[in-house]
Amino acid sequence: MPATLRQVQVLAFDVFGTVVDWRGGIIAELTAIAPERDLSLDAGAVADAWRKRYQPFLDRVRQGELPWQVLDELHRAGLDEVVREFGLERLTEADLHRLVLAWHHLPPWPDAIAGLVRLRSRFVLATLSNGGMALLVNLARAAGLPFDCILSTELVKSYKPDPRTYQLVPSLLAVRPEQTMMVAAHPYDLSAAAAQGMRTAFVRRPQEWGTGNVEGPDFSVDVEADDFLDLAAQLGA
Amino acid sequence: MPATLRQVQVLAFDVFGTVVDWRGGIIAELTAIAPERDLSLDAGAVADAWRKRYQPFLDRVRQGELPWQVLDELHRAGLDEVVREFGLERLTEADLHRLVLAWHHLPPWPDAIAGLVRLRSRFVLATLSNGGMALLVNLARAAGLPFDCILSTELVKSYKPDPRTYQLVPSLLAVRPEQTMMVAAHPYDLSAAAAQGMRTAFVRRPQEWGTGNVEGPDFSVDVEADDFLDLAAQLGA
Repeated sequence: MPATLRQVQVLAFDVFGTVVDWRGGIIAELTAIAPERDLSLDAGAVADAWRKRYQPFLDRVRQGELPWQVLDELHRAGLDEVVREFGLERLTEADLHRLVLAWHHLPPWPDAIAGLVRLRSRFVLATLSNGGMALLVNLARAAGLPFDCILSTELVKSYKPDPRTYQLVPSLLAVRPEQTMMVAAHPYDLSAAAAQGMRTAFVRRPQEWGTGNVEGPDFSVDVEADDFLDLAAQLGA
Repeated sequence: MPATLRQVQVLAFDVFGTVVDWRGGIIAELTAIAPERDLSLDAGAVADAWRKRYQPFLDRVRQGELPWQVLDELHRAGLDEVVREFGLERLTEADLHRLVLAWHHLPPWPDAIAGLVRLRSRFVLATLSNGGMALLVNLARAAGLPFDCILSTELVKSYKPDPRTYQLVPSLLAVRPEQTMMVAAHPYDLSAAAAQGMRTAFVRRPQEWGTGNVEGPDFSVDVEADDFLDLAAQLGA
């Protein structure tokens, strides 16, 4: 292991897509609700359309066009657009609420828990997610994710890739930036973390969008891993 | 169980004295260091003197006399005074650092882990402590404390009993204040929590100061318990 990696003490994990399978979880909830409303829908297409509204909404908050609000509220605003786009007006208010809450109990990727357990023996494990604190606490409880610490960008009332969100990790865990490593399936997240001095681990999640394709980083990351078990092996945990 | 308690979803725990035995942990560290420096000391008296400097330092930060700083720094400032008072100048810089870090790995009370495990089956468990985030994460890891979420007054750069520290719990965990309960061995903490609308549980810790005495609340709390197992029984967990 290179010397730069030997000093890492804290791993900060992106959550949606990296630790948990948002697409699988949202498809499952849509598939459960649809027959109750006599709706036929392409659950994968609805899930993807919903998720694609995520970054534009976050950008508007980061740029000050929208006041800061927790992710649940942005999920709801995006869902309202998706309902119109896909003609899902039969969904009730309770259904929409249930769909927003589906993001609080998404299924972990198959390797996630075993990988986190191994990594935790050597590193402090934190989340660093755009999900709100309550969402992340619910998600970790529901899936049994063994994090030492839940950190959300809510703590600085902004969203990744705002530099202040990454600075939370060394600041609150009392280590230097180079003693922390961001773990994510998304190059934009790692690039922003590296700009704040964090080490970076890219984890391939080819089924995040159900396609089998991975868009890898076009810059140098410290580690590339196939899953959390591979990451643990590479980090000596 | 009264209706007011049935709506509680989140338990927020004071840590020093309530979950962990700070006195036992500090005595153990002092007792380990003293012979290395050929020092004879009354470890209990030193621990008590150190802890008694805690509230006055916190008050000075809350009142703006001192700039905000994490508890480690206040522990160090208090320790420097104790060294002079007890003539402990033989302690080295490394010893003093080790003593400050002893607060990061204090032993839990004997009932604490089993009680938290039971309570967690029914409630979201958070810390709400004057210890910094890094300290609390280290403490929870070292003792294996099964908290869902580490919250520190560091998140508002103040100390209990500042009202803003209690407001963190409902705000970040997305519940109403009356859906949260502060659990503490110290009446001042519960009184300040109640003023922010939280429910209150007083836990008797007669050995916190090694005396067997308990100074109970002189106001009405929602629950009084002998330990965390008794608390779990009373809360139906």
